Amino acid sequence: MRRIGVVLLSGGLDSTTVAAHAKAAGHDLQALTFNYGQRHGRELEAAKRVAAILEIRHEVVDLPVMKKLSWYSALTTRGLDVPKNRIMGESTQRIPITYVPLRNTVFLTLGAALLESTGLSLIEDGQIDPKEISASVFIAANAVDYSGYPDCRPEYFQAMQLALVEGSKLGKQYGVTITIETPVLHMTKAEIVKLGVELGAPFEHTWSCYEGGDVPCGSCDSCLLRARGFAGAGIRDPLLERPPAGGEDC
Amino acid sequence: MRRIGVVLLSGGLDSTTVAAHAKAAGHDLQALTFNYGQRHGRELEAAKRVAAILEIRHEVVDLPVMKKLSWYSALTTRGLDVPKNRIMGESTQRIPITYVPLRNTVFLTLGAALLESTGLSLIEDGQIDPKEISASVFIAANAVDYSGYPDCRPEYFQAMQLALVEGSKLGKQYGVTITIETPVLHMTKAEIVKLGVELGAPFEHTWSCYEGGDVPCGSCDSCLLRARGFAGAGIRDPLLERPPAGGEDC
Repeated sequence: MRRIGVVLLSGGLDSTTVAAHAKAAGHDLQALTFNYGQRHGRELEAAKRVAAILEIRHEVVDLPVMKKLSWYSALTTRGLDVPKNRIMGESTQRIPITYVPLRNTVFLTLGAALLESTGLSLIEDGQIDPKEISASVFIAANAVDYSGYPDCRPEYFQAMQLALVEGSKLGKQYGVTITIETPVLHMTKAEIVKLGVELGAPFEHTWSCYEGGDVPCGSCDSCLLRARGFAGAGIRDPLLERPPAGGEDC
Repeated sequence: MRRIGVVLLSGGLDSTTVAAHAKAAGHDLQALTFNYGQRHGRELEAAKRVAAILEIRHEVVDLPVMKKLSWYSALTTRGLDVPKNRIMGESTQRIPITYVPLRNTVFLTLGAALLESTGLSLIEDGQIDPKEISASVFIAANAVDYSGYPDCRPEYFQAMQLALVEGSKLGKQYGVTITIETPVLHMTKAEIVKLGVELGAPFEHTWSCYEGGDVPCGSCDSCLLRARGFAGAGIRDPLLERPPAGGEDC
């Protein structure tokens, strides 16, 4: 069985753990990182280093279309502020302003398009029998410590996988299911940290903070969740042990 | 009821008819055209003229990512040839090489992202009550004269709509269903031509041919279907009445 996979790699803690997991499980992997108008390039650099260390083929794909179309979000539009000092899913039932319209649907679709192209070329070039191939898109969504995002829920992934199968040649002609794999969906942040450490995930090169300074801000939603994760796992965050980069890319 | 809509406008016969239909039905419309590495810019020009004539706000969105990720297709990769002189769905049960991996899923997702951004801004700026809004993405897919594409089938659109609702804030927080509207799905090409003519769709400015010359090639899959449509409707194709552009953009 040839197991082809695409992993969506943001450069954060969760996607780095998922990439390490997929690699360890023997998938023939490609990593994709989307540059979609985040506020800084810090996490793109993190993703490149993580992929290099894990020895996964990696592409950074510019996606200015997200800023243009999914424009109603604090992550893509500067006029809308990112809330601070609270973990948003806890303080309100409402979906926060950091939600980017259909972000995971865009990312999963593009990841699956690369996966399908890879699969079709292997099958139609006669390199492999469709029965001998599996195809997975890995996404580091999490439904435990989540911020209320609709596109991080199991029901969503189930619906999305069906759409990918129904809408693909890989699914309808060759009977190859494009599977959405969400290995950390039901894990706490502490469990993700533990798993990552076990798999040798290079956490010291990851980046979680919504801000883009030399060191994490420590107060945004994402920093608070990360700190809680390491605390819960009883592990020190290696990123905080590193000296600040001081503006140099080293 | 405020009816917001996004119409995917390729510049061809079907999407021009769908745009005219959505406009006539009273939707507050935006049209989106994707430049994804088609072989020529002829249809982008057609889309611009059609939108201008129908007085619909219009954006052409560059999507080089399609060529990069959905690369296994005769429409995005030059080494793979477009078959000629046959209508592909008829001669084989197999999905042809002109299939672009997950194209409609990419297009619908991006159209829905613009739609959701528009809807959320109206709701969250307090301009409109969620109960007073409807949201539709219009796509000119066709399941009658189709070429066997998996992402032109009713089962696919049903699955995709559920994914959009499950994965969106508009759907999960505000109860607004993002509806995929496929008004010409079950129409023959002749019926589409008739409907377009009734609605005053500017067919003389549309472009269907897979090739990009001054006049349609007349032999590709798409030209054959178009010719059959006009013949079946008993209407002369106004595009063929126009003098060739002669290399000038007039």
